[in-house]
Amino acid sequence: MAGDTFGRLFTVTTFGESHGPAMGCVVDGCPPGLGLAESDIQHDLDRRRPGRSRHVTQRKEPDRVKILSGIFEGVTTGTAIGLLVENVDQRSRDYSKIKDKFRPGHADYTYQRKYGIRDYRGGGRASARETVMRVAAGAIARKYLAERAGVSISGYLAELGPFELAAVNLGAVDDNAFFCADPGQLDALEDFMVKLRRAGDSIGARINVIASNVPPGLGEPVFDKIEADLAHALMSINAVKGVEFGDGFKCVRQRGSEHRDELTPDGFEKNSAGGTLGGISSGQDILVSIALKPTSSIQVPGRTVDTEGKAAEIVTTGRHDPCVGLRATPIAEAMVALTLMDHYLRHRAQNADVLEAEPGMASSV
Amino acid sequence: MAGDTFGRLFTVTTFGESHGPAMGCVVDGCPPGLGLAESDIQHDLDRRRPGRSRHVTQRKEPDRVKILSGIFEGVTTGTAIGLLVENVDQRSRDYSKIKDKFRPGHADYTYQRKYGIRDYRGGGRASARETVMRVAAGAIARKYLAERAGVSISGYLAELGPFELAAVNLGAVDDNAFFCADPGQLDALEDFMVKLRRAGDSIGARINVIASNVPPGLGEPVFDKIEADLAHALMSINAVKGVEFGDGFKCVRQRGSEHRDELTPDGFEKNSAGGTLGGISSGQDILVSIALKPTSSIQVPGRTVDTEGKAAEIVTTGRHDPCVGLRATPIAEAMVALTLMDHYLRHRAQNADVLEAEPGMASSV
Amino acid sequence: MAGDTFGRLFTVTTFGESHGPAMGCVVDGCPPGLGLAESDIQHDLDRRRPGRSRHVTQRKEPDRVKILSGIFEGVTTGTAIGLLVENVDQRSRDYSKIKDKFRPGHADYTYQRKYGIRDYRGGGRASARETVMRVAAGAIARKYLAERAGVSISGYLAELGPFELAAVNLGAVDDNAFFCADPGQLDALEDFMVKLRRAGDSIGARINVIASNVPPGLGEPVFDKIEADLAHALMSINAVKGVEFGDGFKCVRQRGSEHRDELTPDGFEKNSAGGTLGGISSGQDILVSIALKPTSSIQVPGRTVDTEGKAAEIVTTGRHDPCVGLRATPIAEAMVALTLMDHYLRHRAQNADVLEAEPGMASSV
Amino acid sequence: MAGDTFGRLFTVTTFGESHGPAMGCVVDGCPPGLGLAESDIQHDLDRRRPGRSRHVTQRKEPDRVKILSGIFEGVTTGTAIGLLVENVDQRSRDYSKIKDKFRPGHADYTYQRKYGIRDYRGGGRASARETVMRVAAGAIARKYLAERAGVSISGYLAELGPFELAAVNLGAVDDNAFFCADPGQLDALEDFMVKLRRAGDSIGARINVIASNVPPGLGEPVFDKIEADLAHALMSINAVKGVEFGDGFKCVRQRGSEHRDELTPDGFEKNSAGGTLGGISSGQDILVSIALKPTSSIQVPGRTVDTEGKAAEIVTTGRHDPCVGLRATPIAEAMVALTLMDHYLRHRAQNADVLEAEPGMASSV
Repeated sequence: MAGDTFGRLFTVTTFGESHGPAMGCVVDGCPPGLGLAESDIQHDLDRRRPGRSRHVTQRKEPDRVKILSGIFEGVTTGTAIGLLVENVDQRSRDYSKIKDKFRPGHADYTYQRKYGIRDYRGGGRASARETVMRVAAGAIARKYLAERAGVSISGYLAELGPFELAAVNLGAVDDNAFFCADPGQLDALEDFMVKLRRAGDSIGARINVIASNVPPGLGEPVFDKIEADLAHALMSINAVKGVEFGDGFKCVRQRGSEHRDELTPDGFEKNSAGGTLGGISSGQDILVSIALKPTSSIQVPGRTVDTEGKAAEIVTTGRHDPCVGLRATPIAEAMVALTLMDHYLRHRAQNADVLEAEPGMASSV
Repeated sequence: MAGDTFGRLFTVTTFGESHGPAMGCVVDGCPPGLGLAESDIQHDLDRRRPGRSRHVTQRKEPDRVKILSGIFEGVTTGTAIGLLVENVDQRSRDYSKIKDKFRPGHADYTYQRKYGIRDYRGGGRASARETVMRVAAGAIARKYLAERAGVSISGYLAELGPFELAAVNLGAVDDNAFFCADPGQLDALEDFMVKLRRAGDSIGARINVIASNVPPGLGEPVFDKIEADLAHALMSINAVKGVEFGDGFKCVRQRGSEHRDELTPDGFEKNSAGGTLGGISSGQDILVSIALKPTSSIQVPGRTVDTEGKAAEIVTTGRHDPCVGLRATPIAEAMVALTLMDHYLRHRAQNADVLEAEPGMASSV
Repeated sequence: MAGDTFGRLFTVTTFGESHGPAMGCVVDGCPPGLGLAESDIQHDLDRRRPGRSRHVTQRKEPDRVKILSGIFEGVTTGTAIGLLVENVDQRSRDYSKIKDKFRPGHADYTYQRKYGIRDYRGGGRASARETVMRVAAGAIARKYLAERAGVSISGYLAELGPFELAAVNLGAVDDNAFFCADPGQLDALEDFMVKLRRAGDSIGARINVIASNVPPGLGEPVFDKIEADLAHALMSINAVKGVEFGDGFKCVRQRGSEHRDELTPDGFEKNSAGGTLGGISSGQDILVSIALKPTSSIQVPGRTVDTEGKAAEIVTTGRHDPCVGLRATPIAEAMVALTLMDHYLRHRAQNADVLEAEPGMASSV
Repeated sequence: MAGDTFGRLFTVTTFGESHGPAMGCVVDGCPPGLGLAESDIQHDLDRRRPGRSRHVTQRKEPDRVKILSGIFEGVTTGTAIGLLVENVDQRSRDYSKIKDKFRPGHADYTYQRKYGIRDYRGGGRASARETVMRVAAGAIARKYLAERAGVSISGYLAELGPFELAAVNLGAVDDNAFFCADPGQLDALEDFMVKLRRAGDSIGARINVIASNVPPGLGEPVFDKIEADLAHALMSINAVKGVEFGDGFKCVRQRGSEHRDELTPDGFEKNSAGGTLGGISSGQDILVSIALKPTSSIQVPGRTVDTEGKAAEIVTTGRHDPCVGLRATPIAEAMVALTLMDHYLRHRAQNADVLEAEPGMASSV
């Protein structure tokens, strides 16, 4: 497969370009009997939607999802679910300035080298608009996991440039357009973003995701460890340059006696490991964190070459997010949901006999 | 698949436990006509082998590889390559102390929850001994990539506990048992490790890998970005808790004008991105870095529970690496080689017409 | 995956039910640079379309395909191609007669057992309407194979009930609604079908497909032999109950001295094998033949049970093909095209070095 | 993957050539807790073993299987199972007569075209010796299916050249070396085979396989119908040229009113469909039949070309089965077992909720 399919058992296959008529996907392998309406998906799409604040792209996209198949009388039938989101505001502008130049930090150069052709309108397939279908598919996975296993998945903005947003008040996340769990710092963030936009520049960010009540046993021992598949999922999001679990890179300086999570009859003492042991979920919260690079589309002029290899200058105008991290939270949550859902099905495929023999096995420690 | 297969086109499927009779794998999809002898693989296995210094496990394993199929008259035939490495020193000792207890930081607890059974001898399938076949298979990928595309893949120890090993003298890496590229710090490292072992404790580490002369065009646009598949590959190595590319987590604090790699007619100005754009290799060096947690098997007593949930104390004796990072360099290199090889084949499957039309396309910028 | 994706490298993932708003698919892995317009696909869809004669379902479906992504300036970009065909004539009728009964020969019973729910409107996902997207995707594969490798794929009706349509005049196939290559028997066929429809009954058929100018080397040695993957492809079409290659079941009575295709400097003497040896295409024509069972929806009353297990009688009214074989030719061709295309890419992924070393290797013997 | 892996969840990956040191495989995804000893596998290997009668190859192979991993204290652990069978009688003889010639009906020509190289010793990877690992892996699948679901899988020789072996006395199958269920015809078969061997010729055969007590619900609606995956599995066996289910090619001449299997409160009236509806198992017996071509290695001289394209004559001496069908029964059974096992896991992955809700759902009608 050419990389537009994610998952082994619960799969999502996406298509669509920034300036084409529509984005779409096929969600295959969903268990039957799950109540599902467009509004269930729409809720998550609305969280990701552009235009929620003045600090993100002003592209006007209602992002209305249509379910084209796989639902009958309000529940999933077990057959393929087709989803479609039309592009409403894909207005064509003048691309003559970027048509023959490679924008630094963008996929222009690599697409040209790989395919010998590229759709230069708005980034084509490389546009972050692609992530709309990840969120749509993720909403289905999330609903199933919540209803059948009680899993909840919550993300938040943990850092933005110089700001360490250390407080974790998950209840506050959906009350602001930054997905910030540290509301005391919102004014300062707001101020920072205003100045950044005026400077025509962009900034990096860190997003944390917590998955709670994940059943123990998800993940495979060798290549498909749950962290490995989550890392794949999260690193596939545009602009992500780093992924870490639990103590992550801090492990480098830790001693074994400091790092290990001891066990008591009441459960694990702490969670340095981020919810996995030997690549398999332990029933603790899964803690994962990603780094997003600053948006490459900025108004600060930069050097580049054109398609003939000659030196050129470039300024990226247009509608861009000055911090891709600001809208990445629902996307990261969706990728975590898709990965956990896939492994939930993989686990019961192989180990249903164990689950039957010890029903409590499915709950956390 | 239950996670013992890696790759889509160039695949490796492994088996074997720490205390079973042998480790083995099947390498499928290797192009025909590649000169391959056991010595080609043995070279890489010897780099990973235990017992190279007093700071790693003293298990005595010659790790002699046998090629069982797929080679005829000294070259690959294009059919499945079977590899076998016998376990020579899998001596059984008394497991009564750990048989019924979950060692903190180990996979004991999660295997028991997932499978309802676990092979408690030496960690069974969860043992890092599993990585021997990754290195064996990786040696084949590395040889093909080197011969046909000139790719070279080099790893080194970049941090160990408090030591930042900042000098990068790749020529020195194979001259010491630490895979350290900063020979000026070897004495201090040696001293640190001696004290650590006496304390019965362990330490984390960071490994960097550089892949040079990688052709542009490797990686797929959406879910199978080259970083995503590399992250999957590297995060699947035992004890890895973080992966980052190029500037990695430093991106969080960068501005776009600072991060982006500008282009000139002589190539990219720098390499903040770590060799990829839009998930596709750019022809620059691929720069990836991983964090490894400290070994969980330490002699510092710790709290745990037994299989009946009762409180217990545990001390892990036996033959263990006090820093898994010390032997991880060849393993990380192997996983990078396997991933690049797989994408090399994937790329030419889809884009052979582009490569034919512009033969220079296969070389770097 | 739950079975809605076909192929490894050139993949098609479909969705849609008979009575939903639309059928659709994602074609992934198509090489870039292929000229492609909706009209290229429409041509094949028109051949499959219902309503071409009075002997097929009278459902009125224009089957207009829309390309939603993956094309830029008239050529494929190498990214996912989204295709959509709206259902225009999915009029709801009264399903109360079949809602609670299992129609014999249909998927009603097995869907209910598998999923605990079924979409009873027009067969839902089990409707042969699903094949519209196979034909759409197949048209892309066929175009690529024709343009780059000169492959041509032609099917025809070889038997219908008692009629053995032995003459093979491929030029006549598209001149009649039966895809019959034996025009001398058309009047008799026509007469037979009129009587059959009056009797409210249905009939089986055999379809042959010939793929010419297939490059040698397609197929993998063990499990993914080219015949194995073609058998999978063709047996997945609704109503197909048998697949054979070359002499097929006649082999059972043949001696080796009679069966084997001897070689001379001018090529193979004959083609008993149907174009493959050891699971790999030989460069000869690939000859494959499928048996289709008679349509299960007939007006002859039959016995069945209802969803509570009680005895019931059933008569299937509505719009049905009295011979599914009549419209199966383009579908079978499409599945052959998809399979060959996938193996074309798989072959060059692994063996591009061989193809480069001996350019003639790609042509037939 | 290059075709040496079979299955999605319960996978087998094989390697090994006729004249190499060993055959082997990795069975991945087996549920934990299954009692498994080498003797369980050996039983099936002994049924396939050469030398059971004078009518098959006289190669002396004990075919002793070794389990290298995945078993602990007598039961499967859920991790990869490595199996190895050494080649004992791979004696090298003089290959100068066939080294540079393409044997008609063999894979010599196509391997040379595909890979640019071939292992000419005994057919290399194309040898039917490859099937030994299918049988070994199939034994595990068969044991699980029998113990957990009561599935039984039985094959027999249904035709051999002119003999239609119409009686089906399954109890007699293992009492003769032909796997013949019609013992009244054994003397005539014996006589026929003696004469055939004297003539240096070979003959085709048909094998039937019956899978009983298969739970309803196995198979996926669209591309991975249970028949499609079984056809793939069976057509991948060396020499198989046709596959049919239930009435198979006889459907071509049937009317719908004759073909359909009506339902009564006591179950299905008959089984024309061969145990599936809409690609999903119905709980009836799965009935599948395959055609095997006559062995290509015969002593009747034939025409061929050498590797330079010049005309040549060829006689194949050596140790060959004059009827590959004679030893194919255990192989066909194994492929059916592997396919059903894979779909058994796939089914419960997606539909465990349905199975839980209606426990009776897992049993047949």
